[in-house]
Amino acid sequence: MLWATSPACTELETHVMDWLVDMLGLPDKFLSNHSGGGVIQDSASNASLCALLAGRERATSYSSNEHGCDARLVAYTSNQAHSSIEKAVKIAGIGRENLRLVDVDEGFAMQADHLAQLIEADRQTGRIPCFVAATVGTTSSNGIDPLPEIGEICRKNNLWLHIDGAMAGTAGLCPEYRWIHNGLEMADSYCFNPHKWMFTNFDCDCFYVADRRAFIQTLSILPEYLRNKPTESGAVIDYRDWQIPLGRRFRSLKLWFVIRHYGVEGLRHHVRRHIELAQQFANWVEQDKRFELAVPPPLNLVCFRHCGGDELNQQLMDRLNQSGDLYLTHTRMHDRLTLRFCVGQTNTEFRHVERAWQRIKDIAEELQSSA
Amino acid sequence: MLWATSPACTELETHVMDWLVDMLGLPDKFLSNHSGGGVIQDSASNASLCALLAGRERATSYSSNEHGCDARLVAYTSNQAHSSIEKAVKIAGIGRENLRLVDVDEGFAMQADHLAQLIEADRQTGRIPCFVAATVGTTSSNGIDPLPEIGEICRKNNLWLHIDGAMAGTAGLCPEYRWIHNGLEMADSYCFNPHKWMFTNFDCDCFYVADRRAFIQTLSILPEYLRNKPTESGAVIDYRDWQIPLGRRFRSLKLWFVIRHYGVEGLRHHVRRHIELAQQFANWVEQDKRFELAVPPPLNLVCFRHCGGDELNQQLMDRLNQSGDLYLTHTRMHDRLTLRFCVGQTNTEFRHVERAWQRIKDIAEELQSSA
Repeated sequence: MLWATSPACTELETHVMDWLVDMLGLPDKFLSNHSGGGVIQDSASNASLCALLAGRERATSYSSNEHGCDARLVAYTSNQAHSSIEKAVKIAGIGRENLRLVDVDEGFAMQADHLAQLIEADRQTGRIPCFVAATVGTTSSNGIDPLPEIGEICRKNNLWLHIDGAMAGTAGLCPEYRWIHNGLEMADSYCFNPHKWMFTNFDCDCFYVADRRAFIQTLSILPEYLRNKPTESGAVIDYRDWQIPLGRRFRSLKLWFVIRHYGVEGLRHHVRRHIELAQQFANWVEQDKRFELAVPPPLNLVCFRHCGGDELNQQLMDRLNQSGDLYLTHTRMHDRLTLRFCVGQTNTEFRHVERAWQRIKDIAEELQSSA
Repeated sequence: MLWATSPACTELETHVMDWLVDMLGLPDKFLSNHSGGGVIQDSASNASLCALLAGRERATSYSSNEHGCDARLVAYTSNQAHSSIEKAVKIAGIGRENLRLVDVDEGFAMQADHLAQLIEADRQTGRIPCFVAATVGTTSSNGIDPLPEIGEICRKNNLWLHIDGAMAGTAGLCPEYRWIHNGLEMADSYCFNPHKWMFTNFDCDCFYVADRRAFIQTLSILPEYLRNKPTESGAVIDYRDWQIPLGRRFRSLKLWFVIRHYGVEGLRHHVRRHIELAQQFANWVEQDKRFELAVPPPLNLVCFRHCGGDELNQQLMDRLNQSGDLYLTHTRMHDRLTLRFCVGQTNTEFRHVERAWQRIKDIAEELQSSA
């Protein structure tokens, strides 16, 4: 998949990715007419892998690609990061035991102090720190890592900083939620998933890099049968060099349709409404003494539990999910089973959330009375 | 993307992949009710990467995932293999200089003797050979590697053998072309792309493994928020563990529609017709003294050139492609610019091929008379 394969496919993607920089108020360096640029990936997992590879290569002067992964390399993420970071570290040949899991604070956000300590300890034993994955809205609990502090540490240590904003990033559409992206100006790469919370069909992960030269050097290969004048002129983008596979789909088209259909104001309206509904749900949980919030919900994901213990919560979730009326997932927080209620789908309205809460209360009551 | 996320999505994929084993006459071990199974990937690039990772892990008793890529690992492919093998070797942390490029014979097929020599030399210097990528229908010229000989060597040395049948594999639909898959019974993994030559929209790469346990152990991760009863029962397939990303699309649906629409006989009819048209084109080239075949075309890809030299062939291709009437790509064979004419699209008929040949002759004549 070269530019020449379908110029429209590449050109529209570049435009749509540039629009989103403006729409979300992301740093200018992610724009294609600045030093960086955006590309649509299939998922945040692959975006993380690409970022890790770029970090691996930058830290070894692009020699791991040539001679094999330098055995001294180390990567960092919080113990709340998505499992795809661990998967990426394995794939990239760095190895799971060379991924340091940074402690988190009470709000499940990465402790920057601990990150700095780990990096220092690794440096002192001759290791090569190369990559930090921070998260804006962790999968488990929507924890938001402190990007300004992490960014400073990465800059000081010359580490590739990747920010995974898979679901929560969409909130950046609304100026009042852009605080989640504070510090993003220090990131080397960033991604968020319109297929998660922006009314776009799977797959659609928007991935940005601040320095496209450094990034492309990692994945570029040009065999004879792919040589062509536009590519060699350097005047066009070959997104093939921005991702793991060679082939690619015309994904920007669906994103363009979504943006046209809702408009920026329309998208903001829905995002605000989703957060409002989730916060309403959180209020109900808080006011009911039989339930508790595991953590104050920053956006549209509410982590809560019934106070009756793990077994009751497991039964509650199983009964609700078997009913077909709603679908909850779970996690473990403070070593206790915790239910996850998320508002982010196109047609979710107040009545759905209200009914869900009623069902949760009803089934919990049934379980308690039969216990 | 767990089984529980959408049971239908997983179950249909397993069925369709099993059907294709029968349709193409592939070895039984690739069936889900035998030791292996199939999965739909986005592209052959990612299939190769997955296979390489599985080979890397099997050769190091699954320790590269833990401790980082073993620096002694070596992979092998022919100098005609697709660039994605080199990309995969870089991504996996093995390094480009640890990918050995095996020589090819006059038909651009891998020389098994040379492969055996390279492996032996590496063993003697303490290296760990782990992976061989052979190709059924190379990108450049449709060269078909000698799978029986390569398979023997891999079995003797316990190397993961991956077979890339990206486009040509589809010919296996017809019993008379199944010779291309001779020796496949010794492969650990195999892929072919219905999106290339089976009327299926991109992306759709069918990837099979002979030993799903060995394969899944490579990519499996199970964080708390993905734990669920069906997965833990071991009774269902979680395709997440069969690919690089976590998320995935419902790709089997389009493949099912294609199979339903054409039927096996319909698919065979078109494949035969495409090969017949390509062979017809090759005959015309052969009979015209101004042109020559670079290699006898085994299937639907014809590699040919005008006898007037590289510059004339480049001009010829540029003029034809700019006309919008047809689209040729090129390669280099015997260090000479070579044009590639491929028949494989749904609506290509005799009149298109006839007209293409006329246009090629006309423009070549114009270029020669103006020279």
